[in-house]
Amino acid sequence: MQVVMGIDPGAANLGFGIVRVEGSHMVALDGGVVETTPEEPMERRLERIHRALAELLTWHEPRAMAIEEVFFGKNVRSAMAVGQASGVAMLAAAESGIACFTYTPQAIKMAVCGSGGAGKRQVQRMVGTLLGLPEPPTPDHAADALAVAICHGGGHGHREAAAVATEATAGLRGERIAG
Amino acid sequence: MQVVMGIDPGAANLGFGIVRVEGSHMVALDGGVVETTPEEPMERRLERIHRALAELLTWHEPRAMAIEEVFFGKNVRSAMAVGQASGVAMLAAAESGIACFTYTPQAIKMAVCGSGGAGKRQVQRMVGTLLGLPEPPTPDHAADALAVAICHGGGHGHREAAAVATEATAGLRGERIAG
Repeated sequence: MQVVMGIDPGAANLGFGIVRVEGSHMVALDGGVVETTPEEPMERRLERIHRALAELLTWHEPRAMAIEEVFFGKNVRSAMAVGQASGVAMLAAAESGIACFTYTPQAIKMAVCGSGGAGKRQVQRMVGTLLGLPEPPTPDHAADALAVAICHGGGHGHREAAAVATEATAGLRGERIAG
Repeated sequence: MQVVMGIDPGAANLGFGIVRVEGSHMVALDGGVVETTPEEPMERRLERIHRALAELLTWHEPRAMAIEEVFFGKNVRSAMAVGQASGVAMLAAAESGIACFTYTPQAIKMAVCGSGGAGKRQVQRMVGTLLGLPEPPTPDHAADALAVAICHGGGHGHREAAAVATEATAGLRGERIAG
């Protein structure tokens, strides 16, 4: 049994999702979005994100933090803003004594849907299916965060549910963040 | 009288410089580099940076944090890493109840040397002159951090020292980080 916190980082809307993994069974424990407004100074927004995540980490005591890492389609300015949000998320993880892992959108889609090219709605539906939710989770950022938590959890639920060949989910273990 | 903490953000080497501004007079109170190694997981490196800055903020009680913001010459990946480091620096500022301001390299060079195109060595020499140091400060990241602190301090020392026309340093006030 392990609990994983997934993060879809952003300064305006940071998605989080907390999943408990028990063998091939996965359950959503929590999920949502930390919202901040552009009217607030950035350092206050980052403080709000950090505090919210610190509380969630204390409450759920996950064993790992899994972060979606998107480089494609970002410019330098937006990458820096996403970096600031993910930086305070990673700090919260370190302060809780847990390790961070990053996953590309392709790896997440592959783990959740069995295809790196799966669409957003397809991912959302499969997240709902794998977690046994009555309907696909919303909002998008929370669903994306649950997806990366599932990806870190090993995609066992999916492998069992859809009988995907082992090769399809090979090489999906998160890249340890070391540089 | 105000104390300003300048930051030259980076995950591997984060420069800091603390300057006390008294009218046209400026004094360096502290300066250095928080170093982390690529072998350490990124979340631990960010924790080390955050802790070091939190201690400096408690010790020197600056009234503002001024951060050098470099977009040019960065790719998306390096921008995200710099964002992570500046994110935890800004968080430390927010936790200390002070505001953050960002300055471009051009604005900093203009404030310190009177020219947005000044070279690295020239900036370092002028930082030493303005702060009354026996020689230009080293290492580079600490000098850059002192430069951005001077820039936020208003460049009064320089205006007096070099009799630069007011126009040269107009429009150099930091952009309030709000998005």
